[in-house]
Amino acid sequence: MALYVMKFGGSSVGTIERMKSVAKRIVEKQDEGHQVVVVVSAMGDTTDDLIDQAKLLNAEPMAREMDMLMTTGEQISMSLLSIAIGALGRQCVSYTGWQAGFRTEPVHGKARITDIVPTRVVSALEGGNIVIVAGFQGMTEDGEITTFGRGGSDTTAVALAAAISADFCEIYTDVDGIYSTDPRMVQHARKLKEISYDEMLELAHLGAAVLHPRAVEYAKHHQVCLVVRSSFNHNEGTVVKEEVSMEQGVVVSGIAYDKNVARISILGVSHVPGVLAKVFGSLAEADINVDIIVQSGDLEGKADFSFTTTLSDRKKALEVIQGIASEVNFSEVTSEENLVKVSIVGAGMISHPGVAAQMFDVISKQGVNIKMVSTSEIKTSCVIESDKLNEVVIALHTAYGLDSEGQAFIGGKDRR
Amino acid sequence: MALYVMKFGGSSVGTIERMKSVAKRIVEKQDEGHQVVVVVSAMGDTTDDLIDQAKLLNAEPMAREMDMLMTTGEQISMSLLSIAIGALGRQCVSYTGWQAGFRTEPVHGKARITDIVPTRVVSALEGGNIVIVAGFQGMTEDGEITTFGRGGSDTTAVALAAAISADFCEIYTDVDGIYSTDPRMVQHARKLKEISYDEMLELAHLGAAVLHPRAVEYAKHHQVCLVVRSSFNHNEGTVVKEEVSMEQGVVVSGIAYDKNVARISILGVSHVPGVLAKVFGSLAEADINVDIIVQSGDLEGKADFSFTTTLSDRKKALEVIQGIASEVNFSEVTSEENLVKVSIVGAGMISHPGVAAQMFDVISKQGVNIKMVSTSEIKTSCVIESDKLNEVVIALHTAYGLDSEGQAFIGGKDRR
Repeated sequence: MALYVMKFGGSSVGTIERMKSVAKRIVEKQDEGHQVVVVVSAMGDTTDDLIDQAKLLNAEPMAREMDMLMTTGEQISMSLLSIAIGALGRQCVSYTGWQAGFRTEPVHGKARITDIVPTRVVSALEGGNIVIVAGFQGMTEDGEITTFGRGGSDTTAVALAAAISADFCEIYTDVDGIYSTDPRMVQHARKLKEISYDEMLELAHLGAAVLHPRAVEYAKHHQVCLVVRSSFNHNEGTVVKEEVSMEQGVVVSGIAYDKNVARISILGVSHVPGVLAKVFGSLAEADINVDIIVQSGDLEGKADFSFTTTLSDRKKALEVIQGIASEVNFSEVTSEENLVKVSIVGAGMISHPGVAAQMFDVISKQGVNIKMVSTSEIKTSCVIESDKLNEVVIALHTAYGLDSEGQAFIGGKDRR
Repeated sequence: MALYVMKFGGSSVGTIERMKSVAKRIVEKQDEGHQVVVVVSAMGDTTDDLIDQAKLLNAEPMAREMDMLMTTGEQISMSLLSIAIGALGRQCVSYTGWQAGFRTEPVHGKARITDIVPTRVVSALEGGNIVIVAGFQGMTEDGEITTFGRGGSDTTAVALAAAISADFCEIYTDVDGIYSTDPRMVQHARKLKEISYDEMLELAHLGAAVLHPRAVEYAKHHQVCLVVRSSFNHNEGTVVKEEVSMEQGVVVSGIAYDKNVARISILGVSHVPGVLAKVFGSLAEADINVDIIVQSGDLEGKADFSFTTTLSDRKKALEVIQGIASEVNFSEVTSEENLVKVSIVGAGMISHPGVAAQMFDVISKQGVNIKMVSTSEIKTSCVIESDKLNEVVIALHTAYGLDSEGQAFIGGKDRR
């Protein structure tokens, strides 16, 4: 007998029929002799619909009240799922985040978990129940309801798995597992049998939408064995864990891309160190996320540097820089869109020199200029123009020996 | 400055536009210099929609999970209303039933309030907030979420008004107030300026759907001054309180009717007292609500008796009686539908003899037979065949001097 946490995303429970099929799946797990705790997201588009309603009433709805509003989405899906499991003759109870013992810092919209006291979950399990827990939500010390932000249900699942020492935390979604790259783009994308937390973190941060980065961090920190698999079939998924057995000759595990990239360049900068501190300090104060930073050239004491941010932050970032123009010394600011960041990720890169060089070679053979480069121990990212993205990803996928023989199974998006 | 509890039913907040208009109404009250706590029901048909979804998953959904599910309806409307009030530049916080301090007995679907600890409501009020509280819900000592059953939001409003010593508890609905009879049936129904708790209780029990009987009982017990008024206009409503100034010559305050009536007759009963105890004991065990009981005739030691129940309980009641046929002594059981109970209610009846006799006279002049009669200090009810209901109610309304000169304003139904 093992203890499982099974997490189902919004599209997995998006209709009454899917809800029934998820209920069956959960009961099957119990029939195999296991104890089961289920974490569930809001059904389908519920959360977005609630946000839309709030915006009709108030262009800037209060964060506290938005948490009150949005947490109902999970409360509806958890009780309906419990009712569906009851129809299959099983004992089942559902708990909201606060009932399940999730305590958070007093922040609305993106609270961090401070503590989990899963007393009720554990005693319900001991009483022979299947336990359903609402994802994405908790409560402060003062009894205020909070949410974890998008992707928060993954975090609920992983944190709960850690708190109750579950043997496995299965993340059910609408794809078969973690793929070597986006199977919608590359027909021969390969489903990974295993992947390390660190690789998964890079892939998650780099735009692979299957697992939320915070959940992966939490899993790594608490060594929770994650399994990503489909709620629509019984195929084996991808196991995410600390130590991964390396396949012969596979250095790169996956290729990710991120289309949400804008580049801003500040040209003719003198006194570079002071300017860097001033610019990025001001951007951080304005809550603008900066990703890659590259400094280029140093001609007669003057340098250019560039950084990337998201498309939606581009305008604000330019305004911030214009706003400090009187304090820093530069000649010009430019910005660029229609870019994409392509990354190769693999724990084996650290011991295989030349992996990055091969990437530059493959990209240039596609006739594509590399605009920026960024590297870490287990990844290399290149910012390129977006018009040849498909060709570049396909070529990299082949070059690193990732092509599978079959064709990938892939559904729609299943976030939160 | 006074402290108001304002309660808005589901149809008052059924759309985004209505929600906005309710928000304005609440802000007006604050602008008049008052403190405001608002109790709100689920929007429009939300509750019924949730029940429908549950039934698609499970014909007999678990009561605990139904409470989890249904309480989201009020949580959605309270947070949206709070967001709408925020858009008008006011500080506003919403609380679920458990956050507002509603403690109940551990029963699902129809829990009674055991205690209210409104600490957070009071301190939010002191902080200058408008406070929104979800109607219809509370929490047990063990942290289980419970509901009060249909009409429960009225009870929330009245109980909270008592707990925080509010000066007024205004029940906003889709009618202008309490009418002398159903204005949809009688064009000249008169809006009552005042009515006593006892009269309101009789009217509520007798089918006038504006206020839930339990809420009226609670108001009477705690001497909460209730005002029933429309959320769609600013007309004065009806005040429900203990002592009502009697209008000259008005003995009957209102006329109610109830179409949900079935009559069951047990004929040729010997040993009447023992049979009565056995029959009504068995019916009570089967959870069948019995209203009027009438014993008629006593011929050679044999008697007939009849009682009324609801249409939906008729079949079950007959089965119960057949089930004890071997233990009691009677010759026949019959049942009858197509009946209606018409009642006149008035605190003045006790000091005015002949009021009931006038009722019988008016009904018989309509050529209608009276099948059963039941009286209390402040009401007289007659069960009659349903086909002449309209004529009877109109005739009674005129006979007791209740006709107004204007025409009643009346909207749709607004329950819970």
